[in-house]
Amino acid sequence: MPRSTSKPASPKSASAKPTSPKPTVLDKLINSPLAAKAGVPQGYPLRRYSPGQPPLEHPVVLGGHGRLVADLTQLLESDYQLMNASADTPRGAIVFDATALETPQDLRELYDFFHPQLKKLAPCARLLVIGPRPTTAAQPLAHITARALEGFTRSLAKEMRKGATVNLIHVDPQTTATHLESTLRFFLSGRSAFVDGQVVHVGSTDLADAPSPAQPADSADAAPPAPLTGRLAVVTGAARGIGATIAEVLARDGAQVICIDVPGAGEHLAATANRVKGTALPLDVTAPDAAATIASHAQDRYGRAVDVLVHNAGITRDKLLVNMDATQWDQVLAVNLFAPVRITQQLLEADGLAPGAAVVGVSSMAGISGNRGQTNYATTKAGIIGLVDALYEPLAAHNSTINAVAPGFIETAMTAAMPTGPREVGRRINSLQQAGQPVDVAETVAYFAAAASRAVSGNTVRVCGQNMMGA
Amino acid sequence: MPRSTSKPASPKSASAKPTSPKPTVLDKLINSPLAAKAGVPQGYPLRRYSPGQPPLEHPVVLGGHGRLVADLTQLLESDYQLMNASADTPRGAIVFDATALETPQDLRELYDFFHPQLKKLAPCARLLVIGPRPTTAAQPLAHITARALEGFTRSLAKEMRKGATVNLIHVDPQTTATHLESTLRFFLSGRSAFVDGQVVHVGSTDLADAPSPAQPADSADAAPPAPLTGRLAVVTGAARGIGATIAEVLARDGAQVICIDVPGAGEHLAATANRVKGTALPLDVTAPDAAATIASHAQDRYGRAVDVLVHNAGITRDKLLVNMDATQWDQVLAVNLFAPVRITQQLLEADGLAPGAAVVGVSSMAGISGNRGQTNYATTKAGIIGLVDALYEPLAAHNSTINAVAPGFIETAMTAAMPTGPREVGRRINSLQQAGQPVDVAETVAYFAAAASRAVSGNTVRVCGQNMMGA
Repeated sequence: MPRSTSKPASPKSASAKPTSPKPTVLDKLINSPLAAKAGVPQGYPLRRYSPGQPPLEHPVVLGGHGRLVADLTQLLESDYQLMNASADTPRGAIVFDATALETPQDLRELYDFFHPQLKKLAPCARLLVIGPRPTTAAQPLAHITARALEGFTRSLAKEMRKGATVNLIHVDPQTTATHLESTLRFFLSGRSAFVDGQVVHVGSTDLADAPSPAQPADSADAAPPAPLTGRLAVVTGAARGIGATIAEVLARDGAQVICIDVPGAGEHLAATANRVKGTALPLDVTAPDAAATIASHAQDRYGRAVDVLVHNAGITRDKLLVNMDATQWDQVLAVNLFAPVRITQQLLEADGLAPGAAVVGVSSMAGISGNRGQTNYATTKAGIIGLVDALYEPLAAHNSTINAVAPGFIETAMTAAMPTGPREVGRRINSLQQAGQPVDVAETVAYFAAAASRAVSGNTVRVCGQNMMGA
Repeated sequence: MPRSTSKPASPKSASAKPTSPKPTVLDKLINSPLAAKAGVPQGYPLRRYSPGQPPLEHPVVLGGHGRLVADLTQLLESDYQLMNASADTPRGAIVFDATALETPQDLRELYDFFHPQLKKLAPCARLLVIGPRPTTAAQPLAHITARALEGFTRSLAKEMRKGATVNLIHVDPQTTATHLESTLRFFLSGRSAFVDGQVVHVGSTDLADAPSPAQPADSADAAPPAPLTGRLAVVTGAARGIGATIAEVLARDGAQVICIDVPGAGEHLAATANRVKGTALPLDVTAPDAAATIASHAQDRYGRAVDVLVHNAGITRDKLLVNMDATQWDQVLAVNLFAPVRITQQLLEADGLAPGAAVVGVSSMAGISGNRGQTNYATTKAGIIGLVDALYEPLAAHNSTINAVAPGFIETAMTAAMPTGPREVGRRINSLQQAGQPVDVAETVAYFAAAASRAVSGNTVRVCGQNMMGA
């Protein structure tokens, strides 16, 4: 929920924000070990991803007796170490296949399985429940049972300590372990550090013709191959902040990256582009020909259409509606909503998106829950959720995906500039009791961007540490 | 989000809770005018409904130019006073027909219309936006636009002061002003005092054969006729607390009420039944033959099937899952989830529900967002949302409806027994900066229960003052 307390320097870029002010003595104190001793939550240092690290430092317990267990066993054995549910050593992750739960009475299996596991979690453990998407259930009782899982996972996520997370994965009747692979890889790794208490749907799109850079490794500690190898990505608002980090993470994962920001962003844009060995495209995303410009740049420089389109550029003009002038409304709507909608539709219509493309929007917690002083911003961020829902089908017909991230409280120059009180509360009112990092948003974007995530579409996923703010 | 801090006296009834402890000096102080002066939010006294009061003390502004405006004008003119949008006198309510907004650019009409209205709101004003249900939009742009409305209304709700609320009503392409009538009546009145920042869907079910006790009044200050006249209602957990209040409000609105609670509830159940001039049925809702017992009672005492079925009975057994014993899981699941599911299905199958019936579940904020220490409770309350979703179609085929309320922080014996700190924070972390009353939940149940609400089905509506806790 980015919320600036002062006007950004540039009107068209989320990244052109005021630089962080120096922390005051109070700022330092409240984040110090002394404050921790006095009971101010400091959060547990989260496990984050770096290339070459082992997928998990502790083994995985697989539970449940659903239709996916056999294939999940095979899949997990190839990259992780599986362990017996009754062993006493620490678990790095727990995966429960709930697809066999068909009546509310069956929910008792959740208790029976999880209750004895909880004292044996390694720090930053990952708990995943895989259950049917409720609306795909054939019978009302199965629908009710599937829907109940969400109350369980969201509550259990709030009971975790030491950086452990709990998430729910919804599957269709035709979803296989192969469709789930990129999602399991994301959630079990440090990439999902700040995604907690959420629900992600994995469908059953045919993956036969998807490029598969993610070959099973021969041994558990072999580095996984770069999942975005061969993909051409576009990131708007890439000069600084979260956008720059998204460009870096996509490049780290093997993508070639076209970095876009307003012409005024100047050397920051070039710096990002050089850092990621990509190209810089100074461009006002609100220009009527922005999509054509992007498509031309992709053709001229790379000889191809775009595989990954990340709509990160966004601005805020916070005012109570009663005090807002029309320009403040118009600017925010133009950059945050009209531009992503127009660019996506025009690229799609003009073959500027390659088949198998991934479009990723950036929504916000404010787009879900609303926010005082942000009627304009929240309208656009709710609109991005609408963009995902509305273009899901046209993009599926194009063999492509669309998803969005909805960041919660993330450490940026913008949040650093907030007054101490609201900032320190904002950092801590989530289950992980700390702010997220830009890389957490970027890792989630990279998960959506991968060709291996072809079956993942139509999601708006909060990257918020299970922030208590909601709708 | 009821959460007991001590075990209730009786195992099978939400209403058999500890009685309120005496407020301490601190409790009184923090809710005093002195604390208000020191900046502790006390909330604005909310307008609540009492029979015979005028529908609104100030006129209504109707805006927008959607397909519903002409019929809404006629409908509102019959019961309310309409006023010109440019007049300077206080508005009691503002209704905006957003069904004509078809592209994101059209959203500017929200700004143009609402911005000048906001300085002229009467206390406890009601703001309503009526927009298309996004999934019914024919075009992607219209879908995106409709979805964006929710970011606007949820944000604007957070900007209101003095008890004013903002809600969004989703309509289908076939929904008419007639379908909307009971919903407008609810939201414009004091009945909806604690429903804020929410979304309610109104469909287009044929109302031709629905009894219509709500005749248009001849003059603005005539008492509206009782909307539940002729309906037979069942309320579980009716001995005390919210259940007793639901029984009272349904009776006030003209229903005959069968009051159910566990046999141990004793004189409290009889007291409720006598107060509402109904009948008492001591019954363990988890008994396998509970539905048959209810149907027999309805036949024996009233010679008919049930019109309104309110699943209010619920219990808590709060424990972290790691410390929870199996009995605590089983008891909560049995009362809160198995019983409502079984009773609804069995009554439906055995013609114990009259055609045109309304089933109302009681979910909880915890069922939406999860809650630490309530894996069992939240699982059941998410399951109630599943019950609504799963039985929507079978009940529609029966010409009947199903909806649920999801209470936030409500003043009950249970919340009164909470420690001062969490209770006083819990009371205030919503847009109305105060706890709700049991009657607020009951009024929402009564809205769903009315025959005039036949087009309102499939909703889980939070009664939470737009509590900031969410998913």
